[in-house]
Amino acid sequence: MPEKNPNLLVVGSVARDTLHLPTGSHDYVLGGSAVFASLAGSLFTSPRLVGIVGTDFPDHEVAMLAARGVDVSGLEIVGGDTFHWEGRYSDDLTSRVSLKTELNVFADFQPKIPEAFRDTPFVMLGNIHPDLQLAVLDQMRRPELVIADTMNFWIEGTPDRLAKLLERIDVLVINEEEARQLAGVYNIVEVADRLLRMGPRIAVIKRGEYGALLFEGDQVFSAPAYPVRRVLDPTGAGDSFAGGMLGYVSEVGVADHGTLRRAIIYGSALASFCVEGVSVERLAQVSREDVETRYRAFARLASFDSR
Amino acid sequence: MPEKNPNLLVVGSVARDTLHLPTGSHDYVLGGSAVFASLAGSLFTSPRLVGIVGTDFPDHEVAMLAARGVDVSGLEIVGGDTFHWEGRYSDDLTSRVSLKTELNVFADFQPKIPEAFRDTPFVMLGNIHPDLQLAVLDQMRRPELVIADTMNFWIEGTPDRLAKLLERIDVLVINEEEARQLAGVYNIVEVADRLLRMGPRIAVIKRGEYGALLFEGDQVFSAPAYPVRRVLDPTGAGDSFAGGMLGYVSEVGVADHGTLRRAIIYGSALASFCVEGVSVERLAQVSREDVETRYRAFARLASFDSR
Repeated sequence: MPEKNPNLLVVGSVARDTLHLPTGSHDYVLGGSAVFASLAGSLFTSPRLVGIVGTDFPDHEVAMLAARGVDVSGLEIVGGDTFHWEGRYSDDLTSRVSLKTELNVFADFQPKIPEAFRDTPFVMLGNIHPDLQLAVLDQMRRPELVIADTMNFWIEGTPDRLAKLLERIDVLVINEEEARQLAGVYNIVEVADRLLRMGPRIAVIKRGEYGALLFEGDQVFSAPAYPVRRVLDPTGAGDSFAGGMLGYVSEVGVADHGTLRRAIIYGSALASFCVEGVSVERLAQVSREDVETRYRAFARLASFDSR
Repeated sequence: MPEKNPNLLVVGSVARDTLHLPTGSHDYVLGGSAVFASLAGSLFTSPRLVGIVGTDFPDHEVAMLAARGVDVSGLEIVGGDTFHWEGRYSDDLTSRVSLKTELNVFADFQPKIPEAFRDTPFVMLGNIHPDLQLAVLDQMRRPELVIADTMNFWIEGTPDRLAKLLERIDVLVINEEEARQLAGVYNIVEVADRLLRMGPRIAVIKRGEYGALLFEGDQVFSAPAYPVRRVLDPTGAGDSFAGGMLGYVSEVGVADHGTLRRAIIYGSALASFCVEGVSVERLAQVSREDVETRYRAFARLASFDSR
């Protein structure tokens, strides 16, 4: 296999999660947006991860990330405990409640982009405070494509900072419900219109088990979700989607519209693997061949004889 | 244009609806599952409509149906008033409440299939009492493909009769929420497994603005929904979907898997036209050329470079 390129930078949270799933509970398993995104991206590139953990963060998790080809030299380790999230999912896994959110060392996270990373052409800003996302962009030299995720917490809490961020990114990746909240309208075509007027030239709306929509100029692409027979843990699916998507773009090296459509399918494939295991257990095992097989399954899933 | 074939039979409700939409109210406009389904099917065939109306039913509505190529000779006209439904939609059109359901002449509906209709190969059983759906099948001679719609009312109220019906149909077309209710599980792959074990060899799950899923044997097809910029009235979208779908199958004449996939796209196209107007106002105007144009839009919407 050819050496993978280092064209993808991923900044976000690195966490230890306690999950209460219908199938059982799991204490202090690996989580965080940057972890899921970089593992998903590692199928295509050697992602450069920038994040922060405490001294409690297990060495074997760092070793696992490195073994998957993630460049962990930007992972800051400081005194204290790693970000810890605890949540409980509903029986059908469609909703969850947060039981604990202990920011710990993440509370003082100031992303420092190593000098060697500042020319990385493809940048993924995981779902963190918009000011941190902006601080990352301030340190980058003319990235080719910047994609960012966000959530209701920032839409409600820091709308002005989020507005600043939106002016500086190329692709907004966002949940459907939060897209509607941010746009202030319901109809999804109008939602996309408004999101694109806020700055990004591309909007990707994540719809969970209903797939994803890509809006770029007059083009709309509707990607199906893979019908997963046994969903174990939805945690990280959205981050795996974004990481897989941008990982593929980084491998190709250009973000033309056709590449973006294929990238959405690759992202959806990685998300489908993610939910098949608890924490990263499936995502960290999947091979490029598995991914290609699933990509072909998506092609069969979506195909009809066009005329 | 070649003469359209009479290979589609549609049985269901014919109604006069009073609609309260965010954009205004409309009194006693045309509605009913058989009306939407036969109008949608009329793009491909000359559907044979079987239903019942009262003496209040306007002649011009009958004339409109006939002008669209619907064979109205099976439309029974009896003394009394036509089925009347009144409902109010939420501002975002995602939910509705029934204000009035006046069955009127529909209360005593006993579908009588005219002798000339009993060999029709493709049969659509709109969402009515399972016993009426069964009564239709008792009068048919070896139809090639029978599709039926149903709803929560029958799932809860007449489960045994519904079970009987399911054993005698080929295709179940059903809303996602009602499919989950009928199957008693949440995961959509398991839902489809269970539906297919109840009798039909094909399950079509309607997901509204998220499109539709087709399950047949090991094959799964995920169809997108058309992103409609201005939804005016969702009434009848599901019936237009089913009618358009089976109309296309009737035109082709065989229900192989590839035809079914294309049929789902045609059904989705008709549903997308339906919601663009109040009552049947858009559906009754649409041309075959409009439909083909929208079919091509679906192809662009769903396409990615498969490998």
